[in-house]
Amino acid sequence: MDTVAMTGSGRNSVRELVMDAVVQVLVRDGLDGLSVRRVAAEAGVSIGAVQYHFATKDALLVAAANHVTAQFKSRAEELTHRVLAEEGAAAAFLAFCQLLANAIEAPDGEAGDTNATIVWLWFAAKATQCGAVADAFAAGWSLTENYLRGLIADLFPQLDAAEEAGHLLAVLDGLAVARASEPDRMPPHRAATIVRRHFAHLSGGDPAS
Amino acid sequence: MDTVAMTGSGRNSVRELVMDAVVQVLVRDGLDGLSVRRVAAEAGVSIGAVQYHFATKDALLVAAANHVTAQFKSRAEELTHRVLAEEGAAAAFLAFCQLLANAIEAPDGEAGDTNATIVWLWFAAKATQCGAVADAFAAGWSLTENYLRGLIADLFPQLDAAEEAGHLLAVLDGLAVARASEPDRMPPHRAATIVRRHFAHLSGGDPAS
Repeated sequence: MDTVAMTGSGRNSVRELVMDAVVQVLVRDGLDGLSVRRVAAEAGVSIGAVQYHFATKDALLVAAANHVTAQFKSRAEELTHRVLAEEGAAAAFLAFCQLLANAIEAPDGEAGDTNATIVWLWFAAKATQCGAVADAFAAGWSLTENYLRGLIADLFPQLDAAEEAGHLLAVLDGLAVARASEPDRMPPHRAATIVRRHFAHLSGGDPAS
Repeated sequence: MDTVAMTGSGRNSVRELVMDAVVQVLVRDGLDGLSVRRVAAEAGVSIGAVQYHFATKDALLVAAANHVTAQFKSRAEELTHRVLAEEGAAAAFLAFCQLLANAIEAPDGEAGDTNATIVWLWFAAKATQCGAVADAFAAGWSLTENYLRGLIADLFPQLDAAEEAGHLLAVLDGLAVARASEPDRMPPHRAATIVRRHFAHLSGGDPAS
C-alpha cells in the first residue's frame, strides 16, 4: 500500500487512503471500534501518518463524513444531470431524493452501497454531543435542507417550500436510518416507493407506480 | 449510592441504577465513551456489579435501549390515555406520534428530555453491524411499525395501512434524528408542526394549526 500512497500527489494520496480506511473501519467496527491504530492498519500506513492528517478521533469522523459526502455529491450530480436531460426537472429532483434516502437498487437488483449512509448515521449519533462534530453535522444538514427548499420553490411554487423541505428531509433521513439499520424491514424498493408516495403529495398527483 | 443500591429489591435496584447510569454515560460520552468502568463510577457501584448484570458492552447498550423504551411506553400510555379520554382516538394517535418524534415541549416551553432519543440513535447506529444489537433493534422497530399500522387501519380504513405506516415511521424517525442531533434546525415546535402536517395527509384534511 505504501507504493500506492507514494504515487499521485503524495500527501494527498495518503490522505485519500486514510479517508477510505476510516470509512471501512467505521462500517465494520462502529464508532466505538474506530481508532487511529485500526485506520493505520486498514490503510497500510503508519500511525504517525494518520495522526499527521487527523489529530483526533473526531477529526477522523468528520473527514470520513466529508469524504462520503463528496462521493455522494459526485454521484448525485452525475445522476441528476442524466435524469434531467432524459426526463426533466421533477424526475431529477425525485432521483436526488431517492439517492439521499439510499433507496436506489443496484442494476443487478442488489441493494446499493450503504457505507455512506452508515457513516452518516454514526456522524448523526456523535453530533448529539456538543462540539466540532455537532457543528459540522448541523452545517451540512442545513445546507441539504436549503438545497431541497430551493428545488421545491422552483418546482412547486404553490407550496410552502420551508415547511415542505423540513418534512421531506425528515422522510429521507428516516428512510436512510432504516436502510442502514434495518435493511430487512426497509429494502430499497420499499424506500423508493415511500419516496415516490411523498413526492406525489408534493406534486399533488397520484404516486407514480 | 451504595445505600440506595441496597434498598428496594436488592439486585433489581442495582440493575436499575446501572441502567440509569448507562443512559447518562451514553448521552454524555457517546457509545465510543461507554465503558463498564464509567458506568460503575456513574452508578456508584463496583465494576463487578455492572459485569454481573451486563457481561458485554453490547448488553449494556441493549439494556439502555430497553430501559428508555420502557420509560417511553409508560409515558406514552399515560399521555394517550388522557388524550383519548379528552379528545378522542385520532388526537391520541397524533399525541403518540408527537412523542415518538420527540416533538413535545415541556410545560415551561423548554425542549423536553432528549435522552431517550439519543440512546435510540446510538442503538440505530450500532444496529448497522450484524449481531445481537441489530436483532434487538429490528425486533423493536418492527413492533413499532406494526403498532402504527394497526392504529392507521382502525382510524383510516380507507388507506393502505402498511404503506402509510412505513411512511409515517420514516417521518417520525427522521424528526427524532434531527431533534437529537440538530436541535437548532429542528426545535420541538417545528417537529410538532411537521407531524401535524403529515397527520393531515393521513386524515385527508388540512393541517391543524
